[in-house]
Amino acid sequence: MSMCVATYRAYDDKADFNKKALSIAVGLTVGSWTELPEAQKASMEKHLGKVLSIDVHEPEQAAAGERYADIKIGYPDINFSRDIPALLVTIFGKLSMDGRIKLLDLDVSEDFASAFPGPAFGLQGVRDLVGVHDRPLLMSIFKSVVGYDLAALREQFYQQALGGVDLIKDDEILFENPLTPIEKRVEVCMEAARQAQEVTGQKLLYAVNLTGPTSKLAQQAKKAIAAGANALLFNTLSYGFDVLHELSSDPEINVPIASHPALAGAIYPSAHYGMSPSVLLGKLNRLAGADLVLFPSPYGSVVMPKEQNLAIDAALKQPFHHLKQSMPVPSAGIHPGIVPLIMKDFGQDVVVNAGGGIHGHPMGTAAGGRAFHQAISACLQGTPLEEAAKQADHQELASAIQAWGIKK
Amino acid sequence: MSMCVATYRAYDDKADFNKKALSIAVGLTVGSWTELPEAQKASMEKHLGKVLSIDVHEPEQAAAGERYADIKIGYPDINFSRDIPALLVTIFGKLSMDGRIKLLDLDVSEDFASAFPGPAFGLQGVRDLVGVHDRPLLMSIFKSVVGYDLAALREQFYQQALGGVDLIKDDEILFENPLTPIEKRVEVCMEAARQAQEVTGQKLLYAVNLTGPTSKLAQQAKKAIAAGANALLFNTLSYGFDVLHELSSDPEINVPIASHPALAGAIYPSAHYGMSPSVLLGKLNRLAGADLVLFPSPYGSVVMPKEQNLAIDAALKQPFHHLKQSMPVPSAGIHPGIVPLIMKDFGQDVVVNAGGGIHGHPMGTAAGGRAFHQAISACLQGTPLEEAAKQADHQELASAIQAWGIKK
Repeated sequence: MSMCVATYRAYDDKADFNKKALSIAVGLTVGSWTELPEAQKASMEKHLGKVLSIDVHEPEQAAAGERYADIKIGYPDINFSRDIPALLVTIFGKLSMDGRIKLLDLDVSEDFASAFPGPAFGLQGVRDLVGVHDRPLLMSIFKSVVGYDLAALREQFYQQALGGVDLIKDDEILFENPLTPIEKRVEVCMEAARQAQEVTGQKLLYAVNLTGPTSKLAQQAKKAIAAGANALLFNTLSYGFDVLHELSSDPEINVPIASHPALAGAIYPSAHYGMSPSVLLGKLNRLAGADLVLFPSPYGSVVMPKEQNLAIDAALKQPFHHLKQSMPVPSAGIHPGIVPLIMKDFGQDVVVNAGGGIHGHPMGTAAGGRAFHQAISACLQGTPLEEAAKQADHQELASAIQAWGIKK
Repeated sequence: MSMCVATYRAYDDKADFNKKALSIAVGLTVGSWTELPEAQKASMEKHLGKVLSIDVHEPEQAAAGERYADIKIGYPDINFSRDIPALLVTIFGKLSMDGRIKLLDLDVSEDFASAFPGPAFGLQGVRDLVGVHDRPLLMSIFKSVVGYDLAALREQFYQQALGGVDLIKDDEILFENPLTPIEKRVEVCMEAARQAQEVTGQKLLYAVNLTGPTSKLAQQAKKAIAAGANALLFNTLSYGFDVLHELSSDPEINVPIASHPALAGAIYPSAHYGMSPSVLLGKLNRLAGADLVLFPSPYGSVVMPKEQNLAIDAALKQPFHHLKQSMPVPSAGIHPGIVPLIMKDFGQDVVVNAGGGIHGHPMGTAAGGRAFHQAISACLQGTPLEEAAKQADHQELASAIQAWGIKK
């Protein structure tokens, strides 16, 4: 029987977790079982959820609130349509409101996954577009540009591009507005990108923020692409994963999509409620077709624990049916002195993504980008940053280290 | 200055909450302020967020984790477009991931609200459709019908309708499927409704579950309406509030929409993260145009604390710009012996919504509906249920009380 499998952590000081697991498996599928007539059981069996495992954690000290069980339930695919809303409503719709319970993991069947093309570009496709295969990519984030006009926006873009970054992303709170409408923003920024490329030799992707009414997003994306956009930024959770899936599956939206985690903090951080980061930001983003996935890094002030970062990384990169890998983008609090940690944790297949760590560089925004490139090169060569910073052509790195240090 | 105002509860054992509030107001709008040149300040001031109040709660015992502040921030409307995704990403996008912080309340400006028609029918419109103005409405929930064919579905519908209920809702986990596709389901159930009405005299609304790909929902709704559907059920959180807003604003979707809370438990229950129920299930549902709003009642096993229920009730009914009231539907664990409590808590403007309390009635499903009507009549007349149950024509109520008791 083809099934999607959900793993939950359910907390309860006294519950019989076997009973609890059975009530989930039955209650969220056929509704009732033991009282059904035998003839009906035969026809309903293919719809019945299965308890696959129950792993009870009895705390030694029996501290109230610490007793839990990890419960794995299989949901027959026949019960729901091949879309993320149907899957989520089935496995965690009513159940999310049933006491302290968190969705830890989710495995979708081959059959369910077959309805999802996944990332159109993926990790390798994004590398191909910028022509970089032998190092982490470098992304720069616009500093707040709310209220900026096109000229000011262009200037900030150009300074970032001059630092040789591979990607520049819009601020996620820059919405459609009369000063810098999407097609104008794309036009002036892509022109600045070409101009900077003449200096740096580096092609770059500009992930422009796709906003507005849900039913107009595809049209808006195509307008941006017609104006020259070569990537999109999308606040996935504010619209729903199905919308990302539809955008990424649209053959006319032929540019990579970066999924922003805005609002995710309402769902993943609690130990007792919500969904784990690897499901919410990892598997669901990849299934829905995110080519790049942003999430809070463990390095700065807006933090997510490192093991959760690594679980997202695994969800984005490990084999997952036919789906391409998505590129992880740990974000917030990144400066050049953190690059060795990023590469230790994520390897080379990662986007080093910085905002303040580029714009706040003592020698300016363009120097900020160069400092990151120097740090990345040093790491690839196995040279400690302290050493690399002494080289005559690595003043930008030296200055960055002086400002922010090296995180061990 | 026209602003939307968000109220947060931020937990921190040591933080300077004044600084924290200022960093939110600046960081989520203009990005930086004190370091801006004066000329730029003049032009940017209209974009700058405002700290409206900070109310610090210092615990007497200084128990770790219990120190918090309620912080009110005003966000100038000029910064975001007139849609719920832009509003939520602004006020709680990045901020949701910034430590222990919960969105407690949200007041939108007149200007922002003007983009939202809100509930097309609302509480009074739903009453008009069923022709009932002097008592709570009664809704019956399909018992699990996953795997049922049209004949079995129809029979269950008919038995519910015979009990004289005002509304019948689909199971939220019944998705588009070959056995009971939406237009067929509507056809056979509406025919059963007409047949039952000849017996009961009661008009009823059938809220059929609207599912499938986001871009096809409007079309699917219109297909259902063409087949005779007179109401829709929608799993709002699995699609996003903007999708509900677009559906409810569509003049061709001229039937009331009931918003189901599936997945809401991933967001509201934690003290430290997410959004309060009154924002998530109250204000956002009403803004997005839900005519009926389902949420977990405080009476059964899947519970929400009563004060949170009452806060949702207030959000759905209190004056909110030009928006019609939405009808509250506290759900789960409802039997006739709970009716006095429901009416004490919600007044008459409420939907008494039962599943097991109707289907599980000792005398059968139709008797289950009648028992609820008898309980509602008794409450309206000020007769205690114990007394009412003694009347010769109230056997169904007597039987229900014998089975489930009366909750005080």
